[in-house]
Amino acid sequence: MVTWKNLDTVQAYDELTKVAQVNLAEVMSGASGAERVKKYSVPMAEGLSYNFAAKQVDDQVLAGLSKLAEETQLTEKFEALYNGEVINTGEKRMVLHHMTRGQLGDAVVADGVDKREFYVKQQERIADLANKVHSGEITNAAGEKFTTVVQIGIGGSDLGPRAMYLALENWAKVQGTFKMEAKFISNVDPDDASAVLNSIDVAHSLFILVSKSGTTLETLTNESFVKDALKNAGLDPAKHMIAVTSETSPLAKSDDYLEAFYMDDYIGGRYSSTSAVGGAVLSLAFGPEVFAEFLDGAAEEDKLAKNKELLKNPAMLDALIGVYERNVLGYNTTAILPYSQALSRFPAHLQQLDMESNGKSVNRFGEPVSYPTGPVIFGEPGTNGQHSFYQLLHQGTDIIPLQFVGFKNSQMANDVVIQDSTSQQKLCANVAAQIVAFACGKVDEDRNKNFEGGRPSSIIIGDQLNPKTLGALLAHYENKVMFQGFVWNVNSFDQEGVQLGKVLAKRVLAHETEGALKEFSDLLNI
Amino acid sequence: MVTWKNLDTVQAYDELTKVAQVNLAEVMSGASGAERVKKYSVPMAEGLSYNFAAKQVDDQVLAGLSKLAEETQLTEKFEALYNGEVINTGEKRMVLHHMTRGQLGDAVVADGVDKREFYVKQQERIADLANKVHSGEITNAAGEKFTTVVQIGIGGSDLGPRAMYLALENWAKVQGTFKMEAKFISNVDPDDASAVLNSIDVAHSLFILVSKSGTTLETLTNESFVKDALKNAGLDPAKHMIAVTSETSPLAKSDDYLEAFYMDDYIGGRYSSTSAVGGAVLSLAFGPEVFAEFLDGAAEEDKLAKNKELLKNPAMLDALIGVYERNVLGYNTTAILPYSQALSRFPAHLQQLDMESNGKSVNRFGEPVSYPTGPVIFGEPGTNGQHSFYQLLHQGTDIIPLQFVGFKNSQMANDVVIQDSTSQQKLCANVAAQIVAFACGKVDEDRNKNFEGGRPSSIIIGDQLNPKTLGALLAHYENKVMFQGFVWNVNSFDQEGVQLGKVLAKRVLAHETEGALKEFSDLLNI
Repeated sequence: MVTWKNLDTVQAYDELTKVAQVNLAEVMSGASGAERVKKYSVPMAEGLSYNFAAKQVDDQVLAGLSKLAEETQLTEKFEALYNGEVINTGEKRMVLHHMTRGQLGDAVVADGVDKREFYVKQQERIADLANKVHSGEITNAAGEKFTTVVQIGIGGSDLGPRAMYLALENWAKVQGTFKMEAKFISNVDPDDASAVLNSIDVAHSLFILVSKSGTTLETLTNESFVKDALKNAGLDPAKHMIAVTSETSPLAKSDDYLEAFYMDDYIGGRYSSTSAVGGAVLSLAFGPEVFAEFLDGAAEEDKLAKNKELLKNPAMLDALIGVYERNVLGYNTTAILPYSQALSRFPAHLQQLDMESNGKSVNRFGEPVSYPTGPVIFGEPGTNGQHSFYQLLHQGTDIIPLQFVGFKNSQMANDVVIQDSTSQQKLCANVAAQIVAFACGKVDEDRNKNFEGGRPSSIIIGDQLNPKTLGALLAHYENKVMFQGFVWNVNSFDQEGVQLGKVLAKRVLAHETEGALKEFSDLLNI
Repeated sequence: MVTWKNLDTVQAYDELTKVAQVNLAEVMSGASGAERVKKYSVPMAEGLSYNFAAKQVDDQVLAGLSKLAEETQLTEKFEALYNGEVINTGEKRMVLHHMTRGQLGDAVVADGVDKREFYVKQQERIADLANKVHSGEITNAAGEKFTTVVQIGIGGSDLGPRAMYLALENWAKVQGTFKMEAKFISNVDPDDASAVLNSIDVAHSLFILVSKSGTTLETLTNESFVKDALKNAGLDPAKHMIAVTSETSPLAKSDDYLEAFYMDDYIGGRYSSTSAVGGAVLSLAFGPEVFAEFLDGAAEEDKLAKNKELLKNPAMLDALIGVYERNVLGYNTTAILPYSQALSRFPAHLQQLDMESNGKSVNRFGEPVSYPTGPVIFGEPGTNGQHSFYQLLHQGTDIIPLQFVGFKNSQMANDVVIQDSTSQQKLCANVAAQIVAFACGKVDEDRNKNFEGGRPSSIIIGDQLNPKTLGALLAHYENKVMFQGFVWNVNSFDQEGVQLGKVLAKRVLAHETEGALKEFSDLLNI
C-alpha cells in the first residue's frame, strides 16, 4: 500500500531544504566541470541520454533527492498506477496511457475487457484501415485515393498529434514512408477551419473527428464546417470521415463515419498521443509501422521509469530535479529548448502536458496545498530562441531552469559546409555553448556585458530524431510530469480548472448574463 | 532634459507600494464589475480599445501610476527618443523605428540624410520592385512570374515578419490582395532550409536575404543552402535573390542580388517589422498598399503614445499596469492570449520583443538594479489554450497576469451556426467568459472545483484583424515595452546577453575548448 502525503510533511523534503546549495558557476568550471559532464549522465531508451551536469545539484543533493523518491514512494505509486489502481481520484478513474504501448505489470480488466488487448485491437483496426487507404482499397466515391488526412480536435486531440506529425514529417519523406499529408483544425475561430479547407483538396481528403465524449463544442462545430465543405463539393461526408471517440459516445456507432476507433476514460487527452488519438492520424500519414516504432520507443522508456534507483530512472531524476528547482531553489518557470526544427511544436505539447497536469493548488484529497506546484512551461526551438528571448534567460533578473534537447544528426542529411563546419555541427556547437554560457557565465568589467552564470540546464542527447527516439522522448516527459504530481501530491489526471470558463461561455451564448459578463458580451457584440 | 533614475529611487513608486491593493474578485462582481467594464476602457487607434476593468487596479492605484508616469518622465523620454536622442546608450545609437511609419517630432538627420526620407525612400523602392514582380516586369530568367517569396532571416528578421504575414494571409486572400505565398527559413538546423526548399518551386521563387550586418551566421548558411538549390535547378541565384541589409554591409552593393534595400543601426531587429525587414516580404506577399495600411495603423497608435494623460495613452497605461503587477504585486510571468487563429505566432513575436528588450539586470548606466525587470512572456491563441495550459492559469499556485486580444468579426466571414450561435460568437463568448472566470472565480464546496479568482487580465478589442488594426496592435506593444524599459531604467534596445553563446559556439567549432565545453562537444560529436 502506498501513502499519499503533502510535500511539506515529508521528512526527506525538510532535510533537502537544509542541504548546502551548489554554486553552479564554480562546479561547472575547469576540471570539475569536465568531470561532472562525464559523471552526471543517465542512459535513456533508444540511445538517448539525460545529462544533468549543468543542473544545480551535487552528490549530496542527489542523495537527498533519492531519499525523497523513497519516502514519497514514487516507483511504488507508478506501480499502483500501471497495475490499475484508481489514481485519478477526482474523476474516479484508472490511468492507463502506458498500456497503449506495453504492459508493465498486471493485466488490467475494465468494462469487461483486458485493456491491453483493447488498445492493441484499436491499433490493429487502425493499421488495417490505414493499409486499405494507402493501397486504394478504401477510396473516395470516385474510386480515387485519399492524399490528405485532416485531424479535427482540440487540446490533447490536437497539440500532441500535431507536434508528433511535425516531428516525423521530414524524416518520413526522406525514409520513403510518407503516405499522406496531415492538416489540423482545432480552434473554434471560424478562420481556422476556413483556411485549412481552402488549402486542401477536399475530394481527396479523409477527416478524423477526435472527441472522447463526442460533445466537445469546438470539434463538433468544426465538423459541421467540414461537412458543409464536402456537401458543397457534391461529396458524401460519411465517405470522408472517421471518428476517434469512446465506445459510449454518440459518434461511436454512427453511420456518419466510415469507421470509429475507440479510446476510453482511462487516458486523458494530453496523454493520448500513443492511443487511437495519435494512432489514426500518424498511421495514415506515415504508415502503421512507423506508429508502431513510435510506441516501441515509448514502451522502452516506460520500463526505465520502474527503476527504484534514482540514477537509473531518468524521468524520476528529471522530475525530482524539477521539484528541487521549484520548491527549494524557488524558480517558477521552465523553458523547453529543442535544438531541432522538427520539434517546433513539441514545447507547446509539453506546455499542455505539464501545466494542465500539475497546475493545481489542491492535493489529491481536495485540500489546499501550501507550496508551489507545476511551473509555467514555455519554449521554442534553438537556434531561433537564441535570437529571441535568450537575452532574458542570460541576463534577466529571474533564473529560469532550462531543458535542452539535441541530436547529433539531422533528419534529412542534406547539409552545407560554411566556415569549415556543417549546419548540423553549428547547431550542436550552439547548444553545447549555451549550456556552458548559462552555467558558468563570464566576468566583464562592463557590467552590461557581464554574465552572472549560475543558470541551470539539462540536455537530452540522441543520435537522430526518429519514431523510436520521439516515442522515448514523449514517454520521458509524460513520466516526469507523473512523478512530479506524485511528489506534490496532486492529481495530475483531471482538469477541473477548464470547467468554469465553459459554463460562463454557455451563459453568454444564451444571453443569460449580468454584471461584468454582460458588459463584456456587449463590447464583443455577442 | 530628462533624468534617468532607478525605479527604487522614485518617490511615486514608493508611494504606490503603500496604496491598498484591490480585491479583484470583489470589485469585478455585481454592479461594480459592470461599472468597471464601462469605465476602465481607453480608445486606441483604428477603432481598437484597451479594457483594463479586470486588472487589479482602482482609481487610487491609477492615480499612483499617473504620478509614477510623471515622475519618471515617460512621455518626455519618448519625446527625446523620437527627436533623435541617443537612447540606446549601450550601443550609442538613436532609436528610430517609429520613423518608419511617421514623424512624431523633429526631423532627424543621421549619416548625412533625413531619416524619415530615408525610410520612405526604401518603402518606395520596395513598392516599385513589388509592383514590377506582380506585373511581370521582373521575372525569372525564363520570363515567368515569381509566385513565392522566401524570407531568409532569424530573430527579428523572422519572428515579426512571419507573425505579420500569418496575421494577414487569410484576410488578403479574401480581400483579393494576396499576391505571393511567403515562406520563411530561419534555423541553422539544416532540416529547416531543406524542408522549405522541398516544399516550393524554386524556379518561381524570389528569396529575401535579411541581415543588418550581413554577417549573421545562420542567415549566411541558409543563403548557401538556397544558392545550392537554385544552382542545382540550373538557375542563376543572382536573378532570384534580393537583400535587406545596412548600406555598409557586404551585401549592400553586391552583384549577387537583384536589388538591396536598406535598414540601419537605429532600428533593432525586434523593432524592424515596419522597416524594410517586414516591408519587402509583406509588400511582395500582399502588395505595397497593404503594407502602407499596416504602417498607417502603427503611426496612428504611435501618436497616442505621446499623450501625457495616462488614461489617454493606452501603451503607457498597459506598461504601468505591467510594472505594478511585476514590482508591487510580485507576478513574474505574463501570458498573451489572442482569440484569433491568425495571430498564432504573434505571442512568439511579443516574446522576443519584450524579453529581449527588458530582460536586463543592469540599468542604462551599466549598474546592477535591485528590482525585477522584464517578465517571461508566453502565449497561444484561444480557444486552443483553454484546452491546454489554462488549467494552471485558473487553479495553479502562481498568479499569471493575462493579456487577451479579441475581434468582433472574423477575417474570412465564412461561418456556421451550431446550437444557435456562430463560431465567431462562440469565440467571443469564450474570451468574455474567461475574463470573468479569472477575475471572479467561483466558490465550490468541492475544493477541487473551487476557483479562487483574483487573476487579472486586460483585453484589446477590435472590429476585425486587418492591416490597420494589426499595425496599431504592433505599435501598442512596441511602445508598451519601451515605456516599461523607461520605468525600469534599462536600455531596451541592446542585447548583450546573446553574445557569450556566440563566442563559445565559435570556440567549439574551432575545437578550442576545454573542461565542460569540450566534454559536451564530444557528446554531441562536434
